[in-house]
Amino acid sequence: MKVVVLLSGGLDSATVLAAAVRAGATISALSFRYGQRHHQEIAAARRVAAAWGVTDHTICDIDLRVFGGSALTDAELAVPHDRTAEAMGVGIPITYVPARNTIFLSFALALAEVRGAAAIHLGINAVDYSGYPDCRPEYLAAFQEVARLATRQGVEGTPVQLVAPLIQLSKADIIRWGLALGVDYGLTSSCYEPADDGAACGTCDACALRLKGFAEAGSTDPARYQAS
Amino acid sequence: MKVVVLLSGGLDSATVLAAAVRAGATISALSFRYGQRHHQEIAAARRVAAAWGVTDHTICDIDLRVFGGSALTDAELAVPHDRTAEAMGVGIPITYVPARNTIFLSFALALAEVRGAAAIHLGINAVDYSGYPDCRPEYLAAFQEVARLATRQGVEGTPVQLVAPLIQLSKADIIRWGLALGVDYGLTSSCYEPADDGAACGTCDACALRLKGFAEAGSTDPARYQAS
Repeated sequence: MKVVVLLSGGLDSATVLAAAVRAGATISALSFRYGQRHHQEIAAARRVAAAWGVTDHTICDIDLRVFGGSALTDAELAVPHDRTAEAMGVGIPITYVPARNTIFLSFALALAEVRGAAAIHLGINAVDYSGYPDCRPEYLAAFQEVARLATRQGVEGTPVQLVAPLIQLSKADIIRWGLALGVDYGLTSSCYEPADDGAACGTCDACALRLKGFAEAGSTDPARYQAS
Repeated sequence: MKVVVLLSGGLDSATVLAAAVRAGATISALSFRYGQRHHQEIAAARRVAAAWGVTDHTICDIDLRVFGGSALTDAELAVPHDRTAEAMGVGIPITYVPARNTIFLSFALALAEVRGAAAIHLGINAVDYSGYPDCRPEYLAAFQEVARLATRQGVEGTPVQLVAPLIQLSKADIIRWGLALGVDYGLTSSCYEPADDGAACGTCDACALRLKGFAEAGSTDPARYQAS
């Protein structure tokens, strides 16, 4: 079965890719250079794809900086480093990128149609989802309907299926599953503001969630962190 | 009221822009350089925006050529020049660009959120729609639900409204309305494969639909056509 996997280079999408490979799918990976300040995740996506033998890897250039409005793409807005994991999930954080998952899914829909893929796999998560509206199951169901109606594939054949295997898992559960699948999390990058050499900050929301997940999974994060 | 207008540079979106300006909206226009062979439409979009005094005009670079699969973006696929207007509407034509309207709307959603726009206006049309699945009312209704669920604006306030004023109009009706609004259709470009100097071919689906519309509206197209 042909499957498009949205591959950010982070922990979640690396787990999704590994699960799809282990399930015997033929993978078309899709990543985005969208003006994110954590551009190191593109290199991480390349490492992860290579580690799993995925050679069909499209990297799309789309400059979301023209819109601004997010600490991840706007140099004028600071990435928060002072929030505890407990404080997260209240309201929509400044690291939310307007309509990002909708943009990513719309490109995935195009790639799925061109490749004749039966499904799009993505690592969105509604449990430790940091308050992003476009990570919720009801959002995904709405986009599934768009996928059915938007494309030649949906009109003339079987609509592409959106598959979000992590959506109801905790970060600890994701990590446990990924370790069982053989994911090398040392290849991945989750930090919103890593150092130039790729070392994670350890204090942004993404790092806090990740470190909490490894602790709860009874494991140690193999990623490199900046000395504090 | 703030409104995002998807502005392709063609006849339909120029009419939509004119109607929004006449209605007193503050416009943020959005166009795409997506690798289309009819790149002259970007220049047309600039002319149309300028003619209506729109200074907030974002042109996004997104390279849909990485996907291929359409005669509009793939140099290997020819634009048909031999179909009659009567033959159109049967099946999905080769000029269909996979997921294009979904991609355009997802960027419009991001821009609407950043600008605080109440609506996104777009010139899709279900009557003379040439068989594109993503020009149908049911498609638009599905994306409206995505817009409600995907964004900060939808979660914390009033979801952005998708407005498609042309969706049930014939091409002739659109042209009549546009002429009444004062649209200069000589500024617009509809042709899928214009000459380098911008002159329309007169024989592709887009030209055939346009010329039929002007004839039915009892008017003459002021656009330049190649001598045949």
